[in-house]
Amino acid sequence: MTTFSAAPWLDVPADHPFGIATLPYGVFSTAADPVARVGVAIGEMILDLAPAVRLLAPQLAPAVTGPSLDTLLAAGPQAWSQVRASVSTWLTDTSLGEQLGGYLVPMRDAVMHLPFTVADYVDFYASEQHATNLGRMFRPGQDPLTPNWKHLPIGYHGRAGTIVASGTDIVRPCGQRRGTDGQITFGPSRRLDIEAEVGFVVGTPSRLGREVELTRFEEHVFGVCLVNDWSARDIQAWEYVPLGPFLGKSFATSVSPWVVPLAALDPARVAPPARTVPLLPYLDDSQTPPWGLDIRLEVRLNGHVVSTFDGMYWTGAQMLAHLTANGASLRTGDLYASGTISGERPDQRGSLIELSWGGAEPLRLADGTTRSFLEDGDEVVISAGAPGADGAVIGLGEVRGRVVARLP
Amino acid sequence: MTTFSAAPWLDVPADHPFGIATLPYGVFSTAADPVARVGVAIGEMILDLAPAVRLLAPQLAPAVTGPSLDTLLAAGPQAWSQVRASVSTWLTDTSLGEQLGGYLVPMRDAVMHLPFTVADYVDFYASEQHATNLGRMFRPGQDPLTPNWKHLPIGYHGRAGTIVASGTDIVRPCGQRRGTDGQITFGPSRRLDIEAEVGFVVGTPSRLGREVELTRFEEHVFGVCLVNDWSARDIQAWEYVPLGPFLGKSFATSVSPWVVPLAALDPARVAPPARTVPLLPYLDDSQTPPWGLDIRLEVRLNGHVVSTFDGMYWTGAQMLAHLTANGASLRTGDLYASGTISGERPDQRGSLIELSWGGAEPLRLADGTTRSFLEDGDEVVISAGAPGADGAVIGLGEVRGRVVARLP
Repeated sequence: MTTFSAAPWLDVPADHPFGIATLPYGVFSTAADPVARVGVAIGEMILDLAPAVRLLAPQLAPAVTGPSLDTLLAAGPQAWSQVRASVSTWLTDTSLGEQLGGYLVPMRDAVMHLPFTVADYVDFYASEQHATNLGRMFRPGQDPLTPNWKHLPIGYHGRAGTIVASGTDIVRPCGQRRGTDGQITFGPSRRLDIEAEVGFVVGTPSRLGREVELTRFEEHVFGVCLVNDWSARDIQAWEYVPLGPFLGKSFATSVSPWVVPLAALDPARVAPPARTVPLLPYLDDSQTPPWGLDIRLEVRLNGHVVSTFDGMYWTGAQMLAHLTANGASLRTGDLYASGTISGERPDQRGSLIELSWGGAEPLRLADGTTRSFLEDGDEVVISAGAPGADGAVIGLGEVRGRVVARLP
Repeated sequence: MTTFSAAPWLDVPADHPFGIATLPYGVFSTAADPVARVGVAIGEMILDLAPAVRLLAPQLAPAVTGPSLDTLLAAGPQAWSQVRASVSTWLTDTSLGEQLGGYLVPMRDAVMHLPFTVADYVDFYASEQHATNLGRMFRPGQDPLTPNWKHLPIGYHGRAGTIVASGTDIVRPCGQRRGTDGQITFGPSRRLDIEAEVGFVVGTPSRLGREVELTRFEEHVFGVCLVNDWSARDIQAWEYVPLGPFLGKSFATSVSPWVVPLAALDPARVAPPARTVPLLPYLDDSQTPPWGLDIRLEVRLNGHVVSTFDGMYWTGAQMLAHLTANGASLRTGDLYASGTISGERPDQRGSLIELSWGGAEPLRLADGTTRSFLEDGDEVVISAGAPGADGAVIGLGEVRGRVVARLP
């Protein structure tokens, strides 16, 4: 039996989430070589991509050279395929250990950086269960889903300049809050929360005034990362009518260091949930191979698993088609995220406000402490994986952040 | 009597809106020299700044060299003062005509470009009368101002990647609209509108996790431009609950080519409107020199003046303090706009939806035609001016755009 697996010289277990079928891209540096550069994760190692490509496929070098993934993102789908195929070939070749060994860096020795320059950041609201839960809490007594929810993927623009690398400390934001007594005060948020999301990274730009059709998703989107859309619920609740979330979100958004190419997620494609409202043609994916993704997320708070879930109503392809339906152009480095993903069960919710039901039912952690919202010092890790072929797991890695008190 | 005026060799009338007291910055090119470069407007001429500076103040050359204002914005307030003082000195010097004459380009020969690389774009909602008018139309039967309106400057992030230079054609956006019969359809917007706004251009960045206090406005904000925040009211009305405007705005936003330094607007500083709700300390400007600005905007539609107005409740300094109150950092090139400015009288409204009261009272133009919203081929020009010292006018120039049908 021949199995598609990493070459023996790499010593990567077949079920490793960063096995040969994943090959995500990131940007790293080391103490020995502090220049930020593009790497590919393989098991617990990082392949220093530019020198490997210069050695074995020099014609591809321009696409992978530089301090970020920006050039690779801009290089377009043909280059993405070529680079991925080349790396896959090399890392399954039993004879290349000697040549490539010198370009492998242990992950534990690397510092990971923000992988690309974020152009525009859009956050969607694509999980039906999350939208329903939030609607119940923010607009009690009304239909929890607004009338537009099943007609279009609701989204809004976030702050690109405060997107930070995984591991960056999150300073507790200040802002205006309205107390239960109606008093308006200013101070550190008392309801600091997470939102566990999947992010889509745009590579190929598009022309202003032209939509990007549903079927062109793979031409424009390079890959997927994880996003923690930190949210200050008290600030958000007071500010968000009528123009949407602003300071309740804009203080920081964390992204995972590894961007998994769409090609790696091919085995994870599934049909999205059944649509209960007919879709307009530009969003109708019933006649095209679906882009639902069987990605399972997990949230850990101070090491304790608090939630495991999946479930997006809208697909990445639909979000992209909607985002550009008005002629808005895409730029290399645009990031759009799914919005919090929540499953149906109470333990499948992707935010603390849902898990603690607005603070009414504090969450009990395995260490005996309880949480309604985040305390200073709390660390949140969101990780995810998707099914690969032959039982493999496609890892999305993790996005990590610790809450710290406001700077003195 | 000595008057502060442009040197005779420039031949600029004392009351020219781009007189010696304005000296706005822009980016231009010419057919003879198609390289985009920084210029200063003086009357009907543009001073090609980099060669002039290299000749007369070479130590300032790094701040003004390059294809955009980005380096000048990043250079910080001391450099801004030095460059402005130098240019002002040269252009009032009766003896420099021969030396500088070769660096003057007639404005009519120049193509103007987007003046800076937009980092994040935020749009506020700072005019009380505009918010009241929109509230009446979008949420009939409710209090037109939401409860938070006088406590904080409401704002949201817009799409930075679709900010375009003045003169760029605006392709009519498509999108979902809900008809009066409740049917949801997709097609070209039938209620395409303008929003006449003042934009603030950030030069000096700030640190993540730190607020920028009200009194530090001038350290961070370089200057002011004009913004037309094109809006598709039908798309917006259907999509905006609960996360705010998205596709109704993101298709295009036009900015004026000339950025007027804050220093030029010093004589236009006025007290903002009386506050009827006490402000929290971080927004309270009662003890600091106020940053209300006496800027008067004018909207022309196909050459006919349809509105003349001023009136922002929140100042640029307050918007900045609010934008960063949660610790959100600033980047060089951040742009934040006032939101539509409307005065109290019906002919002082800064958008067509207000001027035609949602289409119920179509506007009659001087040529006998009527408009509720924009038609293909319509051209909108927003211009503005502010009082200078000694009766001078500080011009903000204009932002211009023509609506074209969707691309075939």
